[in-house]
Amino acid sequence: MRVKLVIAYDGTEYVGWQVQKNGISIQQKINEAVSGLFGKPVEVIGASRTDAGVHAEGNVAAFDITTRMPAEKIAYALNQRLPDDIVVQSSEEADEEFHPRFDAVEKTYEYHIVNRRQPQPLKRRNCYFYHHPLDIDAMRAGCAPLVGEHDFTSFASIHAQTKTFVRTIYSLGVRREEDEIIIRVTGSGFLYNMVRIIAGTLIQVGAGLKAPSDMARILAARDRSQAGPTAPAKGLVLVEILYD
Amino acid sequence: MRVKLVIAYDGTEYVGWQVQKNGISIQQKINEAVSGLFGKPVEVIGASRTDAGVHAEGNVAAFDITTRMPAEKIAYALNQRLPDDIVVQSSEEADEEFHPRFDAVEKTYEYHIVNRRQPQPLKRRNCYFYHHPLDIDAMRAGCAPLVGEHDFTSFASIHAQTKTFVRTIYSLGVRREEDEIIIRVTGSGFLYNMVRIIAGTLIQVGAGLKAPSDMARILAARDRSQAGPTAPAKGLVLVEILYD
Repeated sequence: MRVKLVIAYDGTEYVGWQVQKNGISIQQKINEAVSGLFGKPVEVIGASRTDAGVHAEGNVAAFDITTRMPAEKIAYALNQRLPDDIVVQSSEEADEEFHPRFDAVEKTYEYHIVNRRQPQPLKRRNCYFYHHPLDIDAMRAGCAPLVGEHDFTSFASIHAQTKTFVRTIYSLGVRREEDEIIIRVTGSGFLYNMVRIIAGTLIQVGAGLKAPSDMARILAARDRSQAGPTAPAKGLVLVEILYD
Repeated sequence: MRVKLVIAYDGTEYVGWQVQKNGISIQQKINEAVSGLFGKPVEVIGASRTDAGVHAEGNVAAFDITTRMPAEKIAYALNQRLPDDIVVQSSEEADEEFHPRFDAVEKTYEYHIVNRRQPQPLKRRNCYFYHHPLDIDAMRAGCAPLVGEHDFTSFASIHAQTKTFVRTIYSLGVRREEDEIIIRVTGSGFLYNMVRIIAGTLIQVGAGLKAPSDMARILAARDRSQAGPTAPAKGLVLVEILYD
């Protein structure tokens, strides 16, 4: 059967999702746990190749296995074999054609900013600390031009490899929870570094370095150099991936 | 002058606030930073001797120093010398008689519980994971008998060293934030392990192992064995200490 896993992780200690030569990846840890559980080499396919330091509440992976273990028990068995910064949230039998990456129809990310005078140590691993006070209303106004179907070249890494830079953002919002500011974005899919560049640009808007009205101009320019910096990886979390 | 520091820390890697032989303490790190900054041995006095693994958003410490550095700049200078899991939130000149422990009139703690089917890796350092669904209404009902001035012998470690077990709880509440349950308590002061034993007992109430009405009986018994277990240190955070 094909098994679908929903996986949460603290990405701080990893080189990212994808197996790499220069360090330990999330995917490698999952591969080892699945292979160990079933006693033979298994490689999982992931939905989203999160970068080094990026976190997930709900990345998705899949693999094929012949087993009599009920699919929903596999999560518990894998968690016995995983370090405590990677936790399988659920496991279920998927359609035999299910592909975690190609079948995804909607992804949600959050970018977390600690906005206060001094850093908050308990949030240092999963929030970007920004000292200068941010104007959340300006940030919200800056979100509006990005919602919808657009060419997001200005908000993509110059290293992005893609046939088209057109993507659709279904919703983009900013909320405050005490001294934390959270940017939440849902879309059909995202270009390489797109959420971090949107976050880095909205932070500039919040800090008064750009106007909310600049966002439409930046988008139209289709020029990466017009947008703000790529916000640090540690503030980004892949919240959820939806399928049909 | 006497300098008052407000200090936040992630207690995961430390043996607790107080200097000990068996490992590195928060106090030792603060002492080293202050001594290094001013070029001579300085020992700070702390308000609350938090246990190993317990966190703080606002523990308080004080020390005496002769310096021309403005008191409010000392926080920034100390943070350059501290690891990123200990951050001085503010520094100010205090009354020359100010004592962080004896002058405290009110303390607030929170106990954080992740209550869901699987652990959440990004919260593993500062939340206690509890799998069984907790009834937050029952927990709230269980809080009521503890508010006010009482003999809290039932909710103190048998190792507590104190002249009197009478303390006053000003408020005790339970709130839910998504899949996190937070117990928040404010009081005149707390006995050794008191907040963790209250949390451990309220968790039993939430899980249906005790009734909310048991809390009054447990309090009246003045017997530690009547209360629930001491909840794990990692879920506890010292939020704030108030002075006159």
